Amino acid sequence: MPAAGIPRIDVVGSAAEVTRDRVAGCDVAVIDVFRATSVMITALANGASRIIPVTGIEEARSLRDRLAEGGGRKVLLGGERNTVQIEGFDLDNSPLRYRPEVVEEATIIMSTTNGTRAINCAEGGENIYIAALLNADAVAERLAGSGRAVCLVCSGRQNRFTLEDGLCAGMIARRLVERGYRPTDFAWVMIDLYERWQNDLPGALEHCTHYQRIKEQWKDDIAWCMRSNALPCVPRLGENGGITL
Amino acid sequence: MPAAGIPRIDVVGSAAEVTRDRVAGCDVAVIDVFRATSVMITALANGASRIIPVTGIEEARSLRDRLAEGGGRKVLLGGERNTVQIEGFDLDNSPLRYRPEVVEEATIIMSTTNGTRAINCAEGGENIYIAALLNADAVAERLAGSGRAVCLVCSGRQNRFTLEDGLCAGMIARRLVERGYRPTDFAWVMIDLYERWQNDLPGALEHCTHYQRIKEQWKDDIAWCMRSNALPCVPRLGENGGITL
Repeated sequence: MPAAGIPRIDVVGSAAEVTRDRVAGCDVAVIDVFRATSVMITALANGASRIIPVTGIEEARSLRDRLAEGGGRKVLLGGERNTVQIEGFDLDNSPLRYRPEVVEEATIIMSTTNGTRAINCAEGGENIYIAALLNADAVAERLAGSGRAVCLVCSGRQNRFTLEDGLCAGMIARRLVERGYRPTDFAWVMIDLYERWQNDLPGALEHCTHYQRIKEQWKDDIAWCMRSNALPCVPRLGENGGITL
Repeated sequence: MPAAGIPRIDVVGSAAEVTRDRVAGCDVAVIDVFRATSVMITALANGASRIIPVTGIEEARSLRDRLAEGGGRKVLLGGERNTVQIEGFDLDNSPLRYRPEVVEEATIIMSTTNGTRAINCAEGGENIYIAALLNADAVAERLAGSGRAVCLVCSGRQNRFTLEDGLCAGMIARRLVERGYRPTDFAWVMIDLYERWQNDLPGALEHCTHYQRIKEQWKDDIAWCMRSNALPCVPRLGENGGITL
């Protein structure tokens, strides 16, 4: 709900915790640093025309067939299940594969384990933005502009909070508190966490279970996703279900 | 689920997030620092024979009538709704009212807005303990003794995380990590939070929404609830639904 007077900034710890009443009346930013939202930001910054997040794999395939009918339109399927590229998909969930020459002017249909689910869960918010470390300050600026209550949704992993999304939420929330927003307890904890670790994010991530699993395998992806404010763009989910700049 | 090898320590941010699979196979400690679990610990340390947590007010009243039948047994009704004593109840939710001369040998039936709900939600855990700052280290010792996976449940407030419960969870989780337990990301964040603020808990609480509302009204209660490790006892929920030492 929008706060009376001073707008409120809230953070939701995982996609499983998103409820309609928690995002109603709020501007929402969905965060999945490793890697879904980092991929979306990268693809759009590299020239993709829009991204359509879908939950199911079959849904993705049939939407691709429908959009590609008659030819002329470049449609790509991207995503993963449990970090692995989906059979018959064009792209996995590595941001480094979404290069300009690959994605330019493409419509990309994406299905990922946690990220697209969180976006769908956030429906009911006033505006839904796509955030990661790559565009954290730009998203904070956009959110602060409306004066509306804000809800940052960490995607998490397997319905649980993950540290990298919390750090990104803290980075965004801090900017809003600097602008006079009033943090919920959980938002304040995320800000406190970010302030403690902002100069050593990899040091914090050493305590992150998911990071321990992926840090060797996805070394280059992680380095890309950790580049705070490298891509200052603000993807937004439109009425038609597509994400554009 | 119990972890293979090294036991896991998890923290749940609010009663709303407790699911059966999250506590299954775990030893659970339920935390409601302001004030339900602090009250329970105080009452039992002061000589109450047992506490029966119930969700509904009518349920509390009819249970009292049943237990008091025939006389001879001292039965008290305690609790609150939205911080206010319930009509016809003997005690509210202030730990300072649960003095030895009041509670000695009594069975206390308690219904509170968040705390008893969290205890009921935690059913399905192997052992369910009652924790607060008052007995944090004692609970940690007991939990560490079993070698089982641990889930700390913050009651929170109105289905949301609150800072005081998170600080208490961090205090307990830290002891378990010292004993070799492996924290989830959320547990690690709570430990990190506690370590940052352990020498200035009131300083952290200045950022807690609930605390701002209650700090004047319940000044003495809060001072009581903040006495870390003052009552080193470990209340446990028994098979029969009663909490005893």
